[in-house]
Amino acid sequence: MAVRAGIEAKKQERDLAAEKSSQVARKRPLDEVCQDVAPETRGKWRVKVGVRAAGIRNPIREIMDSVAGKENPNKQMISLAQGDPTAYPHLRPSDDMVNAVVTALTSGSNSGYQPSQGHGPCRAAVAEAFTTPGRAALMPSDVFMTLGCSEALSHCIAALAANGSNMLLPRPGFPLYQVLCAYHGVEVRYYDLLPEVGWQVDVASLAKLADENTCAILINNPSNPCGAVYTREHLVEIMASAEELGIPVIADEVYAGMSFTRPFVSCAAASAKVPVLSVCALSKRWLAPGWRLGWITVHDVDDALKSATIPEVILKLCQVSLGPSAPLQAAVAPIFRATPNGCQWHTDILAALEASARCCVRRCRATPGLEVASEPQGSMYLMVRMQPNVLEGIGCDDVILARDLLSEESIAILPGQCFQSPGYFRCVFAAPVEVLEEAWDRIEAFCRRRSAKPVSGQCA
Amino acid sequence: MAVRAGIEAKKQERDLAAEKSSQVARKRPLDEVCQDVAPETRGKWRVKVGVRAAGIRNPIREIMDSVAGKENPNKQMISLAQGDPTAYPHLRPSDDMVNAVVTALTSGSNSGYQPSQGHGPCRAAVAEAFTTPGRAALMPSDVFMTLGCSEALSHCIAALAANGSNMLLPRPGFPLYQVLCAYHGVEVRYYDLLPEVGWQVDVASLAKLADENTCAILINNPSNPCGAVYTREHLVEIMASAEELGIPVIADEVYAGMSFTRPFVSCAAASAKVPVLSVCALSKRWLAPGWRLGWITVHDVDDALKSATIPEVILKLCQVSLGPSAPLQAAVAPIFRATPNGCQWHTDILAALEASARCCVRRCRATPGLEVASEPQGSMYLMVRMQPNVLEGIGCDDVILARDLLSEESIAILPGQCFQSPGYFRCVFAAPVEVLEEAWDRIEAFCRRRSAKPVSGQCA
Repeated sequence: MAVRAGIEAKKQERDLAAEKSSQVARKRPLDEVCQDVAPETRGKWRVKVGVRAAGIRNPIREIMDSVAGKENPNKQMISLAQGDPTAYPHLRPSDDMVNAVVTALTSGSNSGYQPSQGHGPCRAAVAEAFTTPGRAALMPSDVFMTLGCSEALSHCIAALAANGSNMLLPRPGFPLYQVLCAYHGVEVRYYDLLPEVGWQVDVASLAKLADENTCAILINNPSNPCGAVYTREHLVEIMASAEELGIPVIADEVYAGMSFTRPFVSCAAASAKVPVLSVCALSKRWLAPGWRLGWITVHDVDDALKSATIPEVILKLCQVSLGPSAPLQAAVAPIFRATPNGCQWHTDILAALEASARCCVRRCRATPGLEVASEPQGSMYLMVRMQPNVLEGIGCDDVILARDLLSEESIAILPGQCFQSPGYFRCVFAAPVEVLEEAWDRIEAFCRRRSAKPVSGQCA
Repeated sequence: MAVRAGIEAKKQERDLAAEKSSQVARKRPLDEVCQDVAPETRGKWRVKVGVRAAGIRNPIREIMDSVAGKENPNKQMISLAQGDPTAYPHLRPSDDMVNAVVTALTSGSNSGYQPSQGHGPCRAAVAEAFTTPGRAALMPSDVFMTLGCSEALSHCIAALAANGSNMLLPRPGFPLYQVLCAYHGVEVRYYDLLPEVGWQVDVASLAKLADENTCAILINNPSNPCGAVYTREHLVEIMASAEELGIPVIADEVYAGMSFTRPFVSCAAASAKVPVLSVCALSKRWLAPGWRLGWITVHDVDDALKSATIPEVILKLCQVSLGPSAPLQAAVAPIFRATPNGCQWHTDILAALEASARCCVRRCRATPGLEVASEPQGSMYLMVRMQPNVLEGIGCDDVILARDLLSEESIAILPGQCFQSPGYFRCVFAAPVEVLEEAWDRIEAFCRRRSAKPVSGQCA
């Protein structure tokens, strides 16, 4: 089946441009950059680089640099690498959403500065939509509008980043958590997600990892890169552990509402007792990652967060950046009204994503050397496990697999090492089924060419 | 004349809400917040605050908190405090601008992630528009799109913030410079702007302030809060000093193109030899501060910045935040085409601003106790100097003046202390002349009520 050429080609061009600029960056070893002395400056200019900013290390960039720009020139690229739901035209913000922004723009009253914390009616809409039964109703003052979910996460981590603190992060996990913890000076400790049981949290490990300097447990549900959606029972168990340890939770719930069959339950809804900073955005569920519109909701308990001035400090951070684009903020309330869970547009998206997920699972299971530990229940990602000793010249090395898949089949995926999980790769299933079928035709052909006699064992 | 009630009332509501939330914040002394220990947490929750984020001190907030929310309930508020050019309906983004964003939004292809550095055609448009004669043409890779000018400034300061570095900032100056330097660990050293000679830079002082750890001289032209627009000769003199000292320049040129009669000259155009990081945005010249769309242009010389990895590190910072809103980025090229300097829309705006500036200068000169050191040549601000021993119970105290003007006349201005310049206040002249006449009627009445026998001397 033909790949939808136009949009995909544009994406690839973009990916390649990004990869190339990363390649340039790669020429200078990080250790050198990180030294707080000027690398050779020519002439008399005394220009020295800021050590903290220079120290930002994005594992996706670092690993992808080693495989970048080396696709097969005779095969059109299919990227299953970037988590952009709009890469194909079947997933798009609804017309109602676009119209809401157009109305906000043309009204003539949404071009000025907003309150640092965000546009009033927008915060009221978020407060209403994210209020949780069993907890006090969220007030607009509990909501902070941010530049996408990335800034929301950054503000939460910065606000909790006391000197000497550490944070518990999921493994496999979204690499930005680690990038932001490093930037804000927070030590990272990983808890494992268990592949065979729906990528559930290894709850028992939380108590072993935590100490008196643990500033938060970060829970990501639905999960990137695992596609897991936790049951209420499991979330209750996680939150009970957080409560016992006395540690607040940062809930990355940007995939809230992207669950195929299992109802999505938020961290705040799974416990009335744990202070939760929840982050979300229009990027995934509403298919508008480029709009850069996110938010933090503060679910406090007994003023535990307020007493430590966490919301006040998040406000200070917002006072520096001044919030996301005003016309988009002004559109949030009408967007929420037009696109509730279960509306036709949302139902159609979930159906398309589920069909794509099922396609990937089926094709993966029929491919030698690859396996699915647990089927995705939501979000837009499948973690594929490599079987040991099957793929000749590759073994369990996910970076080599990514490199060779690209150079032979022009298929881009992200190696598991990007997510702290070697022996896996992440496959984005936000493409239409016909594109995925073609992608998996190529992946399967690749694996069949490379497959030696299967031997027992485990890659990860 | 009647104040345009609707929009202004909304603004005031917004101002008040912001002020009130600041008041809540104010109850906890900053010293306490800054300590890296948990202030009393209730119950068992071990929540500690991040010292760096908690340490953000915004002088405008701190000073305004002391006067906030205390206007005269019998007089409608007129705010000349916030630098939002859209506060009154006579200053608005052009229809062409709004239509460009609507087109980008409804095209269906600008909702996805952009390259971290920004949308390609948008960067190309900025590179073309900000290329300077006498310097190498800017390439799209020399441009970084940011969340408004604030993020642009933050990235520049973070990238240059080597350990132990200091930066030369203007006094009076925009308080965000100081906030960002503190956040990124850069020591601040102020050079004076000279009030009697058009708020020019005290160039001789630069060499006295700078040392081997000076990472940049920050030049703001046209100026906030002074309304100064520097002549080419003066800028050449400043840049020659930077060159002699071997120190790069951060040029805050967000008011570029907002000059009444004197042609605007950029720092990069005043010297071909000094490395310049210039920041700008759609916020002021294009009257869209709420759109949150800014950019950095890197004018390197002999690879002085590149050798120190400054552009590479700015890219890393962009890779964390992922740039401003995509549909707005996609509109930048058509916006630039539709609104060149000298187009009718731009000419009309400058004429309105100039008329407003002249009104404020005239009224100020007729008001006892107040004086204008140098007339504004551009931007949207007038620095008003207080005469000593004229205003009874106020003297030279700009914070008391701001408080009393608000409580008696419901006029909001910002005390000079917000800009490191006690004895002055900043008056925003982005309001229509009829509003300003009413505002100055009240200011004049206030000053006449308070004026004692004039005595010689100077407040600042």
